[in-house]
Amino acid sequence: MSNENYSHDVYLSPFTWRYGSQNMREIWGEVNKRRLWRQIWIALATVQSELGIVKPEQVEDLKVHKDNIDIENAHRLEADLKHDLMAEVHTYAEQVGASGGIIHLGATSMDIEDNADAMRIQQGTAYIVARLHTVLGVIREQVVEWADAATMAFTHLQPAEPTTIGYRLAQYAQDLQVDLLDLARILDQIRGKGFKGAVGTSASYGELLDGKGITTREFESRVMSHLGIDAFEAATQTAPRKQEYRVLTALASLGQSLYKFAADLRLLQSPPLGEWAEPFGKKQIGSSAMPFKRNPINAENMDSLARLLAALPRVAWDNAAHSYLERTLDDSANRRSVLPDAFLITDELLKRAERLLRGLHVDRQASAKLLAAYGPFAATERLLMECAKRGADRQEFHEIIREHSMVAWAAIRTNQPNPLVENLCNDERVNEFATPEEAISWMDASAYVGDAPVRAKALAEEISNTLNTLSHLGEEA
Amino acid sequence: MSNENYSHDVYLSPFTWRYGSQNMREIWGEVNKRRLWRQIWIALATVQSELGIVKPEQVEDLKVHKDNIDIENAHRLEADLKHDLMAEVHTYAEQVGASGGIIHLGATSMDIEDNADAMRIQQGTAYIVARLHTVLGVIREQVVEWADAATMAFTHLQPAEPTTIGYRLAQYAQDLQVDLLDLARILDQIRGKGFKGAVGTSASYGELLDGKGITTREFESRVMSHLGIDAFEAATQTAPRKQEYRVLTALASLGQSLYKFAADLRLLQSPPLGEWAEPFGKKQIGSSAMPFKRNPINAENMDSLARLLAALPRVAWDNAAHSYLERTLDDSANRRSVLPDAFLITDELLKRAERLLRGLHVDRQASAKLLAAYGPFAATERLLMECAKRGADRQEFHEIIREHSMVAWAAIRTNQPNPLVENLCNDERVNEFATPEEAISWMDASAYVGDAPVRAKALAEEISNTLNTLSHLGEEA
Amino acid sequence: MSNENYSHDVYLSPFTWRYGSQNMREIWGEVNKRRLWRQIWIALATVQSELGIVKPEQVEDLKVHKDNIDIENAHRLEADLKHDLMAEVHTYAEQVGASGGIIHLGATSMDIEDNADAMRIQQGTAYIVARLHTVLGVIREQVVEWADAATMAFTHLQPAEPTTIGYRLAQYAQDLQVDLLDLARILDQIRGKGFKGAVGTSASYGELLDGKGITTREFESRVMSHLGIDAFEAATQTAPRKQEYRVLTALASLGQSLYKFAADLRLLQSPPLGEWAEPFGKKQIGSSAMPFKRNPINAENMDSLARLLAALPRVAWDNAAHSYLERTLDDSANRRSVLPDAFLITDELLKRAERLLRGLHVDRQASAKLLAAYGPFAATERLLMECAKRGADRQEFHEIIREHSMVAWAAIRTNQPNPLVENLCNDERVNEFATPEEAISWMDASAYVGDAPVRAKALAEEISNTLNTLSHLGEEA
Amino acid sequence: MSNENYSHDVYLSPFTWRYGSQNMREIWGEVNKRRLWRQIWIALATVQSELGIVKPEQVEDLKVHKDNIDIENAHRLEADLKHDLMAEVHTYAEQVGASGGIIHLGATSMDIEDNADAMRIQQGTAYIVARLHTVLGVIREQVVEWADAATMAFTHLQPAEPTTIGYRLAQYAQDLQVDLLDLARILDQIRGKGFKGAVGTSASYGELLDGKGITTREFESRVMSHLGIDAFEAATQTAPRKQEYRVLTALASLGQSLYKFAADLRLLQSPPLGEWAEPFGKKQIGSSAMPFKRNPINAENMDSLARLLAALPRVAWDNAAHSYLERTLDDSANRRSVLPDAFLITDELLKRAERLLRGLHVDRQASAKLLAAYGPFAATERLLMECAKRGADRQEFHEIIREHSMVAWAAIRTNQPNPLVENLCNDERVNEFATPEEAISWMDASAYVGDAPVRAKALAEEISNTLNTLSHLGEEA
Repeated sequence: MSNENYSHDVYLSPFTWRYGSQNMREIWGEVNKRRLWRQIWIALATVQSELGIVKPEQVEDLKVHKDNIDIENAHRLEADLKHDLMAEVHTYAEQVGASGGIIHLGATSMDIEDNADAMRIQQGTAYIVARLHTVLGVIREQVVEWADAATMAFTHLQPAEPTTIGYRLAQYAQDLQVDLLDLARILDQIRGKGFKGAVGTSASYGELLDGKGITTREFESRVMSHLGIDAFEAATQTAPRKQEYRVLTALASLGQSLYKFAADLRLLQSPPLGEWAEPFGKKQIGSSAMPFKRNPINAENMDSLARLLAALPRVAWDNAAHSYLERTLDDSANRRSVLPDAFLITDELLKRAERLLRGLHVDRQASAKLLAAYGPFAATERLLMECAKRGADRQEFHEIIREHSMVAWAAIRTNQPNPLVENLCNDERVNEFATPEEAISWMDASAYVGDAPVRAKALAEEISNTLNTLSHLGEEA
Repeated sequence: MSNENYSHDVYLSPFTWRYGSQNMREIWGEVNKRRLWRQIWIALATVQSELGIVKPEQVEDLKVHKDNIDIENAHRLEADLKHDLMAEVHTYAEQVGASGGIIHLGATSMDIEDNADAMRIQQGTAYIVARLHTVLGVIREQVVEWADAATMAFTHLQPAEPTTIGYRLAQYAQDLQVDLLDLARILDQIRGKGFKGAVGTSASYGELLDGKGITTREFESRVMSHLGIDAFEAATQTAPRKQEYRVLTALASLGQSLYKFAADLRLLQSPPLGEWAEPFGKKQIGSSAMPFKRNPINAENMDSLARLLAALPRVAWDNAAHSYLERTLDDSANRRSVLPDAFLITDELLKRAERLLRGLHVDRQASAKLLAAYGPFAATERLLMECAKRGADRQEFHEIIREHSMVAWAAIRTNQPNPLVENLCNDERVNEFATPEEAISWMDASAYVGDAPVRAKALAEEISNTLNTLSHLGEEA
Repeated sequence: MSNENYSHDVYLSPFTWRYGSQNMREIWGEVNKRRLWRQIWIALATVQSELGIVKPEQVEDLKVHKDNIDIENAHRLEADLKHDLMAEVHTYAEQVGASGGIIHLGATSMDIEDNADAMRIQQGTAYIVARLHTVLGVIREQVVEWADAATMAFTHLQPAEPTTIGYRLAQYAQDLQVDLLDLARILDQIRGKGFKGAVGTSASYGELLDGKGITTREFESRVMSHLGIDAFEAATQTAPRKQEYRVLTALASLGQSLYKFAADLRLLQSPPLGEWAEPFGKKQIGSSAMPFKRNPINAENMDSLARLLAALPRVAWDNAAHSYLERTLDDSANRRSVLPDAFLITDELLKRAERLLRGLHVDRQASAKLLAAYGPFAATERLLMECAKRGADRQEFHEIIREHSMVAWAAIRTNQPNPLVENLCNDERVNEFATPEEAISWMDASAYVGDAPVRAKALAEEISNTLNTLSHLGEEA
Repeated sequence: MSNENYSHDVYLSPFTWRYGSQNMREIWGEVNKRRLWRQIWIALATVQSELGIVKPEQVEDLKVHKDNIDIENAHRLEADLKHDLMAEVHTYAEQVGASGGIIHLGATSMDIEDNADAMRIQQGTAYIVARLHTVLGVIREQVVEWADAATMAFTHLQPAEPTTIGYRLAQYAQDLQVDLLDLARILDQIRGKGFKGAVGTSASYGELLDGKGITTREFESRVMSHLGIDAFEAATQTAPRKQEYRVLTALASLGQSLYKFAADLRLLQSPPLGEWAEPFGKKQIGSSAMPFKRNPINAENMDSLARLLAALPRVAWDNAAHSYLERTLDDSANRRSVLPDAFLITDELLKRAERLLRGLHVDRQASAKLLAAYGPFAATERLLMECAKRGADRQEFHEIIREHSMVAWAAIRTNQPNPLVENLCNDERVNEFATPEEAISWMDASAYVGDAPVRAKALAEEISNTLNTLSHLGEEA
């Protein structure tokens, strides 16, 4: 519909053509913005017609052209008027003809623009919530699938004790559940400025409604009900900008969860660990010298974009903090970039996260290799405890374990199999308290995963409930 | 209790001695942290004694020394051990004597430290919520008191239309109400790591509880109930760091509300506006040359600190995003500074905000001066509308108003009284539609405040309800 | 040249169509990027042909198509290859025909991309430096023009002592001079990755150059000399990302200078001060009710954009800090947005700054009004000092001044002329030491500007020298 | 000297007792600040005595008490005066007795405070530069030592091609050299406000110097020369706050370099890589179950603190951008925290970096293991090139290599030795062009390091020159 085109001869934001979904790009297009403006003008005129201020047929005239956005003409007019909304009023009025005069009656620019922005934020948030609902469902399945699959846990990037792959995934899932609940609540709370005029007092509407038997607050409420969004009780020329800080921090929080998932994936895809890998396209070019080399480019991309997302809430904070008195215009220009970028980044992150989670390669062989090398050290704790129950001296046993551990470590460093289980289970000081068979069973690292499987499944259950409760916010088929 | 002292010979954070309340400073002191550690060790031992793992009298021995913090000794030990919690275990154990061996039984350092941190965050948040409850009550009263008091509203720092002082205050109050609700909800959601061992699987507790007829999750739940805080279902070596991002953004959001209030106050205290002023101490030194000069130093201080607060959530974002796999330790060092600073700044902001709101000087004469100078321009809109109802041509009237406005503006610029009302109401083109008396009444700017009073009061009512609902979170007398 | 178009049906960054110059938008367009890639391939082939590795006529074939960018085809190929540079190689090769096989010989993708990025940064920085050179020249003139023009200085937004308008402008000018020197130095230091292959060791080039009597470093140096940019001594797969942090902080620093200028202008354009105003377009729509209302929309826009700019260096910091070992790809995606946005914001800021500075309205009447109201208080200091020299008791005089000041302040608050000079100069306790005429002359606030004029002019002189020294970096006529 | 003490009963910043050197803590202590204030008052009085404004013996009286800081008394007075500098004036004057009246003569608070702050920044920067000079010297030595030592380079955390350890270190060294040069230049440029009075016009000094045959600028220059720091030409109530943004971004840039070094170290210390390790204290507690587990706690700590450092320049940006007109006081409170924290973090980072670099464990065995496993894949490129020279078909050879690579990769994944060299060098299709011996020599990964050694040494040479040039800024023995 838009008749003004831009090519790669000039800078095009990657969020225009490279990242983000078509749907989200349209939400943040000028065309959608102006459609919303027109929708608001029509809602306003509709209620005014109910009150006898304008005529129903005039409203009908407005409706005819509601989607007939003509950016080129609007921008031509704006060049003179230096006012984008007024340029749109003129553009729309020209299309409508005689009835065009009722457009924007009694309103201030910000009554239109600011409500439209709240509606765009609402649209964008609803879309993110729907995608996140899907992603959380996907990861929940993976949590269940891998709930029992043992692997080495790492702290300080050092092998520590065993855990399970499902429980590792449960950490991300738990975070994403928090994000979903936060975003769903914020979505529910998004409000518009309403119809409050130049400084928020509705004074101009008061004049207009004088003698119509309706207060300005009631009038506002009726118009807003046409738009599907509530109004703040108090506003100045705009709705409170705090709202955008809250939305952007919730998006950034989601970005943080996905950052960590992607960062862990990048580490785990490193061949010396090698446990996880991204799905890999058939025609994708790896390194020419190493055709099998698999770079985690989606996860890297996610971390790259999430990092930018993390920087954006601060701009919203500033906009809210620095808008002096009944409003200064120092928010406007950066919001044209920051709001779309924040939503489009989140959109892209979710798209890639879904793809990675659905196609996640889990290499059980790699887990087994890590467990074999590093697991026995952790399992010595169990051996110690069992023997202590049978009367072994803890201090002395610590020393025995330490001694064998040092030998085992030296073997690993030279790529030998880990001899710890064998050496320890056959040490006669150990055999005083346990047979080799007993000792070996205690030192099975893959069994030493504590309640990780239980917790992973319990969390999956909790997520199922959350997803059901919020199923109305999920994506449509 | 602490026996290690620091003087101004070295850097002392302003939050140690200059900003923040004694209460909040104590929450974030090492002594409180170690008291919480000991409380956790006692809770752990208590449940262990119920299960027959340790003896009740051992637990009693622990309780005797629970508040006997000896930082100096602990730090001496830490110098060797390079591990602050282990140094505290030794310090405590030395005090306790024979029963000291049961301290920390089955636990990992982070089972103690991370729960204690969650508890400190809980204490800090509760204190902030209580203070904010008070501040919101104070501003609510001011909203009501000034609900009807007309003054000029400014957009773009330009006089626009009249509003009321109470309605202006209502904007801050509305934001603060959002903050209170957000913080109260977060307070309710704060959870600890629980007792999950080195990588979150509770494996070591599993060994300990073997045969005791209790699962590790039930055990955890029993210990946590002693501490008055729930545990996350899933955790790694620590609780998810996302929690701190959420807390810090909520604090920063509160800081944003207070920033705006303080910034507006600073503007309004500028003598050419002169409407508001901070309460001013008797012995306070103003400018020596201008003893009456009143610098808004509290509001400036608030903006200064809030600006630092705004930078801190990002650190929490990084801590959550970059803690790889089952935990890396790259969060620890900065949390020692960022968490206390965020709470202490917020604390200071609320302290000053309360003082400024309670003692806010409102200069009605200044409002009247501004209304007299700038109000009539806005009120021409009403004149226009009323005359239009009586048949006046809008276009023509616009021109008449414009003409007189230009003259009036010239007068104001040279410090003359605004002649607009007089000139316009006696213009014979106007008198065709309205008597001078009618016109004058329509142009009374102080009456042209729309529904500002109504909305201010409605918001105050809403806040009353909120405060009542949350009264259990308010400060004690 | 680009054949892929985007309309307002989707999100278009404001930096594509609304903010920034055409020139800067082209620098950051895909077309320019690919032109630079081709330039680099040609430079590479040129030196290779000098060494007999490829044939001169092959290089000539490459040159024929150097500007024939075909984005559409390249993107079509990229959809399969998942690799944008390889897709361009294929696109270019198809155009070139038989000689196409020599494109990219021995190179790694990042040898091309990363050098091209450094060249784009160089182009962008050079353009910013040129614009800033102009802006600094313009403000320098204003500093000189207004060097002697007295006005009230404000501290804490309270009238303090007189200064001059030129000296106020000199503060911004001094900051901008720092920015220019910083940016000029950074421009001079921008370096590319050079030709170092996949991990920075030039190993693949070593094979290629084997037996050619040239080292890899010499080879690199020869290719770079064709490109007009030096290479870093050490690099990994990319040049050090610290470079971009330095560039972006220098841009953000410039943004800070302009933010302050714009913020001050916004304050000074507020009618109760009214000293400065933006140039105002003829057809521009002000408030409909107040046709004379002049909103500082350019300055507000600048502050809005500068605030976003301030958030961007942090992304560059992260890119540099987190690029692990010989490079991870977590920088790439955000750089597609952050680098262009930073340059385009700065570009827009300079464009608006130049316009505001060239057309700055200075209202001398407003200054006089402020001086008359607030200046005498400051000037009492001089009266005090002069009378003290003649033997007056300081303490007693302080009291006299204080007494009259209080009366004067009360008058001002009710919009009366300031009676301080008259009252004080005719007080007989004063007349013991000075005649009324003497006292009046000492209390001339407009003369109490200290060395502001001298310093303003000295700074202007310093700037002249700087501009001359850097004249080669200025904009062409 | 300070007589006001704080214990761990309250919050003590980690920078007071845990991080940072004693020296840097003292620079940022209140005592040092007040010593500098007194030094400035003495310098002022000294020049005033030279001009006959005060008496030399009065200046002598001031000097007697110059170090006699009494914080307790000053804070007691401040409680009443609400003005910290005036409280110090009174405290000092009480100590000095009769001559105390000349303290602060003609000065504004900010003439003292702001110059003292510039001097503290100068002291802090000089100390950082000295430490960095040392650290750069240490890393330079390591670059040389390991210049030839081959190891695998990683891109995307995937093994790529060989490089050398010294060349990897050279990347950090190159960044640190940039930081040193930037900081040294900034140190040289740090300037103070000078003596310019309340709004920067020196008006009060003008009165004082009337008839003394010296201009205010000359007077300022003479006082500043006593303080060893120059003054800005133009200032308002304070020196331009841009200076602090520049200093803090330079510190943050250094923090970025060290972040990357520490992050790489953490990765390389992960046992599956295992190439580097921190020096490890004898009594340090590792994991109890794994006594050999070596957590990179110093590097983690560095990354933690550097992350906070990265957030601080933004506060300085805000302080510079938002200080309206001739100064607002919204910088003061946060600077009490941000400036010391930034310097103390940097100080701690350098301390730890030096320790890690001096004691860096390099495990050649681990490098060899990685080279053996992953190096041959990269070296196939050389085999290909050599055989191609002898007439082999590139396309066909690619296929041969690919085939063997796949087999080799499968072996590695199951912890077998890499069979690639053996299989490939004995493949008869290869032997058509090369004997097994030739092929084996070409596939020696440890020799395939390109010009890494040369570049590492060239950079070390460049650094030597830089260190020599800046030797006057290095630490004293």
